[in-house]
Amino acid sequence: MMNRREFLRLLGAGALTTPLVSAGETLATAMQSATLTFAPMLDLHKAVTVPLIIQKAEILRREKDLFIRVTAKNGAVGIIEANNRVPQVISLFKELVVPFFIGKDARDVETLVDGVYTEGSNYKFAGMPFWNSVGNLEIALFDMMSRAANKPVYELLGKRIRNDVSVYLTRLTRDTTPEKELEIIERDFAETGCRAVKIKVGGRMKAESAKIENRSEALIKLARKKLGDSVTIYADANSSYDVPTAIEMGKLLQDNGVKIWEEPCPWQDYDSTKAVADALDMPIAGGEQDTSLWQFKAMIKHKIVDVVQPDLFYNGGFVRTLRVAKMAAEAGMTIDCHSPKFGVGAYPFRHFISVVPNIGAFQEYNLNSSSKPLGEIKNGKVELPTGVGLGIEYRPSDFEKVEIL
Amino acid sequence: MMNRREFLRLLGAGALTTPLVSAGETLATAMQSATLTFAPMLDLHKAVTVPLIIQKAEILRREKDLFIRVTAKNGAVGIIEANNRVPQVISLFKELVVPFFIGKDARDVETLVDGVYTEGSNYKFAGMPFWNSVGNLEIALFDMMSRAANKPVYELLGKRIRNDVSVYLTRLTRDTTPEKELEIIERDFAETGCRAVKIKVGGRMKAESAKIENRSEALIKLARKKLGDSVTIYADANSSYDVPTAIEMGKLLQDNGVKIWEEPCPWQDYDSTKAVADALDMPIAGGEQDTSLWQFKAMIKHKIVDVVQPDLFYNGGFVRTLRVAKMAAEAGMTIDCHSPKFGVGAYPFRHFISVVPNIGAFQEYNLNSSSKPLGEIKNGKVELPTGVGLGIEYRPSDFEKVEIL
Repeated sequence: MMNRREFLRLLGAGALTTPLVSAGETLATAMQSATLTFAPMLDLHKAVTVPLIIQKAEILRREKDLFIRVTAKNGAVGIIEANNRVPQVISLFKELVVPFFIGKDARDVETLVDGVYTEGSNYKFAGMPFWNSVGNLEIALFDMMSRAANKPVYELLGKRIRNDVSVYLTRLTRDTTPEKELEIIERDFAETGCRAVKIKVGGRMKAESAKIENRSEALIKLARKKLGDSVTIYADANSSYDVPTAIEMGKLLQDNGVKIWEEPCPWQDYDSTKAVADALDMPIAGGEQDTSLWQFKAMIKHKIVDVVQPDLFYNGGFVRTLRVAKMAAEAGMTIDCHSPKFGVGAYPFRHFISVVPNIGAFQEYNLNSSSKPLGEIKNGKVELPTGVGLGIEYRPSDFEKVEIL
Repeated sequence: MMNRREFLRLLGAGALTTPLVSAGETLATAMQSATLTFAPMLDLHKAVTVPLIIQKAEILRREKDLFIRVTAKNGAVGIIEANNRVPQVISLFKELVVPFFIGKDARDVETLVDGVYTEGSNYKFAGMPFWNSVGNLEIALFDMMSRAANKPVYELLGKRIRNDVSVYLTRLTRDTTPEKELEIIERDFAETGCRAVKIKVGGRMKAESAKIENRSEALIKLARKKLGDSVTIYADANSSYDVPTAIEMGKLLQDNGVKIWEEPCPWQDYDSTKAVADALDMPIAGGEQDTSLWQFKAMIKHKIVDVVQPDLFYNGGFVRTLRVAKMAAEAGMTIDCHSPKFGVGAYPFRHFISVVPNIGAFQEYNLNSSSKPLGEIKNGKVELPTGVGLGIEYRPSDFEKVEIL
């Protein structure tokens, strides 16, 4: 098995350090932070030739689904399915985030996502609730801009370098028996052609109980036995362990050929996470809930994790997640975004990975919540979208009966 | 002038490491985190003899003011003035925080503030917006519990060790000239008997402009010249500087006898903050926006700052801020809470410092926003409250015409 040092060395080689996007003729202003500066990556004034002055940004409710709709003064519209954290952060979205964007040109989004943070006291609100509000709005702005330019979103983000992606099936349950879990995985593998899976270990943000640990150990052993050596297995502890227990569990995972271990310790406890990463050979992943570019910088610099996993929405959208990807690439690290989604909800993520070189071998896909499997996966791969905007076509009638929140 | 090492050594000596509160006969369950465990500090079941099952928690609006009102099944009520961040986090308060507390005994608050974090996906929402929601509710619960027990809040928090506190006047403006600023400070000193002040330097979360830096330098020199050597001067940069500029500015501050420097670098950039702290002799303070106990632990352990400054509300209330105080005490560090307040809004903070040994020489007081000075400061000191609950008496008629949000 590849050990942690080899993994990092391999990633450090070659193409991964290539700049994501070369700046065009017209440079946007670089991020003006005191201790973190990013050169402009996008050239949206060239890609979108007319100003798109943001007039309104609304949350629409249609039965159980929420959407974000942005409208420019010239009538241009962008619309996305809101992610599942929006209902709890509506007051932040409306009170702090939207007011800053109104009246500004969407094509300046690369500096606007910094401006919304330094505006007034907004920086005090840092964290997922704030950045998820920005992220939902920012992704809708990209939909609007790319529609106005009659292009797919990925063309605004960089150079498309792949047309499809291999996915791993992400398991979200902890209440099944190991036998039942393997039954589901084998059924889903047969249906999708997938050869990679992520399983849950530990108790999720909780000290482990003997019962959970018995399940974790039995599950990991049964998975390897049933699936064979050629299947890629990842494990996710969702912040469950203290350092000694994590090292013990990590050795069991390594011995069973688990390729990446996600969040062994509480996600905000970088010292413990690093202690575990240093003690094990296997790569450690984390960053799902992180939203501070300074903290991502520290996670990368100090090798607190080996794989960074920002969530495109939680982390504030395309621009800020491209920055994390770039910092990771420069350190020879991969970025495997948190994206336990399927169908339309996964489209923003699919545009993102269309242009990012340093992603890992398999990207997350959630078959769980899909009562009707969408048939998106063929031979273990998902095609990346090519249509205008995010590639999702809504009919005007789709939004005739909506409530504006 | 005392240098950073002497400052830390002095703080490490003696009484500051005394446990804040000795656990009573009935121990509440210790925090069950994977990597951070706190022994119980309070004994609320002994202090409050009847169960107080939380029935509802409401946000009340009366003209411009917001209040948090909690009601127990037995009719007990607690009420506090909400802090100024509540309007932006109402959806978090109502959707994530209140539902967890309903039906639970307020006397278990020491474990409830951990439970609300690990409940469902709440931990993903970590940050000030979430913890400020918890903090407002938790402080109202303490008002309710102490009223039910006919005691002041501080009696539930520990042993009262001081009856008054010396305050520093906190200046919040960056748009005055140095001359105007000193005019205000000298007027306020004359009126209050204060001999300590905190002034702003840098541009607040922004790269410095020459104009701002000219003001910072002129202000600091004029302050020392006008106020004389016996006045204590603190400075606050609100995340303004990169490392080289911060070190340069810090040397100027040291040379002018500034005693503590707050937030020289972006608050989430611990590496830069530590680099500045290590390069300067003067103590560095920070933590105003921080709300992760793991991150406070790291700030203390790695001496990223010399003085921790959690905000009682932002950081989730009394229990979690007592924990920060305890971690600081064990490392021989002081805690000077962020509290730019006056009058009723400052009462929770005043109960907190009634029982905490390791606070600094001066605590924050905001005279700025007070159009009518309250006359709370006498000879530079504020008396700490002694009445039942938070010590604020509301009449039923005060809440006859409120809107429930």
